[in-house]
Amino acid sequence: ILKVLLKDLYAADIAELIDELSKDEIKVLIPIIPVDKLAYSLAELDFDDKHTILNLLAPKELKIILDNMYADDIADLLGPLSIGKSKELLKLMKKEDAEQIQNLLGYDEDSAGGIMTTEYIAIKEGKTVRDALNIIRDIAREAEMIYYIYVVSQTKELMGVLSMRELITASPEARIKDLIQKKVINVRLDLDQEEVARIISKYDLLAVPVVNHKKQLLGIITVDDIIDVIEEEATEDIYKMAATTEVDFDDENNTIVKASLKRSPWLIVLLFASILSGSVIDVFSDLLNTVVALALFMPTLAGTGGNAGTQSLAIVVRGLATGDLNTKDLREHLFNEVKVGSLVATICGLIIGLVALVWQGNYMLGVVVGLAMFCNILSATFVGTTTPFILNYLGIDPAVAAGPFITTVIDASGLFIYFSLARLFLPYLT
Amino acid sequence: ILKVLLKDLYAADIAELIDELSKDEIKVLIPIIPVDKLAYSLAELDFDDKHTILNLLAPKELKIILDNMYADDIADLLGPLSIGKSKELLKLMKKEDAEQIQNLLGYDEDSAGGIMTTEYIAIKEGKTVRDALNIIRDIAREAEMIYYIYVVSQTKELMGVLSMRELITASPEARIKDLIQKKVINVRLDLDQEEVARIISKYDLLAVPVVNHKKQLLGIITVDDIIDVIEEEATEDIYKMAATTEVDFDDENNTIVKASLKRSPWLIVLLFASILSGSVIDVFSDLLNTVVALALFMPTLAGTGGNAGTQSLAIVVRGLATGDLNTKDLREHLFNEVKVGSLVATICGLIIGLVALVWQGNYMLGVVVGLAMFCNILSATFVGTTTPFILNYLGIDPAVAAGPFITTVIDASGLFIYFSLARLFLPYLT
Ligand SMILES: [Mg+2]
Ligand SMILES: [Mg+2]
Ligand SMILES: [Mg+2]
Ligand SMILES: [Mg+2]
Ligand SMILES: [Mg+2]
Ligand SMILES: [Mg+2]
Ligand SMILES: [Mg+2]
Ligand SMILES: [Mg+2]
Ligand SMILES: [Mg+2]
Ligand SMILES: [Mg+2]
Ligand SMILES: [Mg+2]
Ligand SMILES: [Mg+2]
Ligand SMILES: [Mg+2]
Repeated sequence: ILKVLLKDLYAADIAELIDELSKDEIKVLIPIIPVDKLAYSLAELDFDDKHTILNLLAPKELKIILDNMYADDIADLLGPLSIGKSKELLKLMKKEDAEQIQNLLGYDEDSAGGIMTTEYIAIKEGKTVRDALNIIRDIAREAEMIYYIYVVSQTKELMGVLSMRELITASPEARIKDLIQKKVINVRLDLDQEEVARIISKYDLLAVPVVNHKKQLLGIITVDDIIDVIEEEATEDIYKMAATTEVDFDDENNTIVKASLKRSPWLIVLLFASILSGSVIDVFSDLLNTVVALALFMPTLAGTGGNAGTQSLAIVVRGLATGDLNTKDLREHLFNEVKVGSLVATICGLIIGLVALVWQGNYMLGVVVGLAMFCNILSATFVGTTTPFILNYLGIDPAVAAGPFITTVIDASGLFIYFSLARLFLPYLT
Repeated sequence: ILKVLLKDLYAADIAELIDELSKDEIKVLIPIIPVDKLAYSLAELDFDDKHTILNLLAPKELKIILDNMYADDIADLLGPLSIGKSKELLKLMKKEDAEQIQNLLGYDEDSAGGIMTTEYIAIKEGKTVRDALNIIRDIAREAEMIYYIYVVSQTKELMGVLSMRELITASPEARIKDLIQKKVINVRLDLDQEEVARIISKYDLLAVPVVNHKKQLLGIITVDDIIDVIEEEATEDIYKMAATTEVDFDDENNTIVKASLKRSPWLIVLLFASILSGSVIDVFSDLLNTVVALALFMPTLAGTGGNAGTQSLAIVVRGLATGDLNTKDLREHLFNEVKVGSLVATICGLIIGLVALVWQGNYMLGVVVGLAMFCNILSATFVGTTTPFILNYLGIDPAVAAGPFITTVIDASGLFIYFSLARLFLPYLT
């Protein structure tokens, strides 16, 4: 019964199922999954599940599975394995296929080379539409993507592109040379995967060809893998903005300790940074002793400053990630942000000033707290806007500056502004 | 010269160019852009630029542009216009096309209906492969996506699907009925666009068919539009986690005031919430008066708690967004988080306790601060993990709980824990 059920499931559903199961349950399931389906499911799994399954299979089954997988997925499968294990698996493959995978394994994981596949359709310029269709019919089963046909020279140089749409609407006798689009959007081997995603997204492509410095076609990147890149990069940015890193609780070895060790460093760095705020309080402790009411507004000042800074920062971080903002936009964007910040600072300053006045019945305290709020939000807006631009310019991922870091910096500077103002107005406060 | 340059640019590049230009510059450029290219560029532009261009064009040009645009892009163009203006444009179109657009405009913007297009390829079951290819050749120019061929019954019910890959490798005499995949992954008209994105991403599809409650095929959603959805939703989540909303500084009417009004409400709500922390300090102000050194650790305690809570929260918010986590995972995930939280809390508690001891030379102060840190991080982990699950269960977007909100809540509770402990240990502190 289970077998019939499995036959009806899509590979992606089987992968989802496997992900939910324990190692022992996987052991029971694997033998009854049709091997070709298992090959597709394998590509969608986490590394630990992949590893479990690899160890369950006999060399004969492994050979069938590798034959049924796309080159990019095989590279992803072998990449994290030990060299010995990886060589063992490569030996099961045809020699030329194994060589291709070896090449793919050589590229940086986050580069175009690291996510491309080598199963594309390339034809020579001289052919007719009829020839091309015949070639495609022959290799369609193997190629990952057959809807863009790339035209190459004798030396494998990328000469043009033709879509299946154009091919099937053209007359069979027409020559490919006369139909191709010669300006082909392409990416270089070493381009970062985020840039590749931006190109596919901008031009609404189903795939983009990857070339080396000699313009030779080496592979293609398909849109389904780009969707994974976009989701992965958004996750990465959200985690960075929360000063954390990915944790996979499914992995069964020491996850708790590993997860703690991943999160602690950030927390500890921030913890020490926040001692700066404590030092500011220390420096002004005589003031705090004289006017205890000053302490009541510390959380609100620090908090609101941090929040305003985070708002400005999130907009720049995301803008830089999606390409809506560029280094050259700093001045214009900062100008706009400062204008918005001033208005917001005025509103919040008035509100907290009034609260201080009503709550503590001290007119000058209201002025000091309100003014401190104004300066704090304005400087938070400035810091929140400029920091990610500067980091980006320096080649550092701006997302790391986010949330917690900005907040900690603004905490200290906000308290400093606050107490300095209080000292200035001290004669009127007591 | 400009004309030649423009001819060589892709529509997406022209859109990018237009986005950089001022209204006056757009006025100069528009007349020299080929009208069919302008149609494609228009789909990629912001609303304000679209509007500017619409107003520059004569009805005759508008007619050509609308003829060259895909149905989903026309619906996006007309959606935000006034009813009068929208009717005016619809009158320029063929009656049946206009009716289709009217239908599309009726669906919720964020639903499958709101992002689908009506230019797909559907054929009847009885045809042969040769018939199908002929039909496709006829309508290929108009359809947005021709690589999936949907098979429908007389009543437009979705019966199956066939890929162009299968079609061109099949014998011309084969009957469609024998080739189709009968289990078609499809989405209902009212499904949220985020769910649609998850399905396209999971099954690596180029398009997904949209059906009504009678299983009738009404449209398709293509992968390029899903990429936009994924990016839009990630932006939305990042903004929500920073308690802000999108601002388009390109829009030229009163943006500064509008942007301030969009951001202020969140800041003000958080500002009032943070007064809770002030009140906690107020309640314990006698304590602060007696042991001034307690004030020095307030920023560090509140800050680290907020950071730890944000870490836990970001993982759940993103997990729920990508589908890696579900409501039913709460218990298991919370269990893991609490274990990680305990370890992290112990580490941070020891560090800050030592800092307090060394800095202030007070043994008991170190114990109080360290213990407060431990309790604070543990409760922050708990709140950060459970809150998004609860909001999700209640049907509220968990991203709104994020960063600033959690931080503000943890601020107040952290201070309360801290001062309560200090009161408990007061005899040993002075
Ligand atoms: Mg790879
Ligand atoms: Mg796009
Ligand atoms: Mg792939
Ligand atoms: Mg894939
Ligand atoms: Mg990256
Ligand atoms: Mg990134
Ligand atoms: Mg613009
Ligand atoms: Mg729409
Ligand atoms: Mg996928
Ligand atoms: Mg579209
Ligand atoms: Mg589009
Ligand atoms: Mg969302
Ligand atoms: Mg949504």
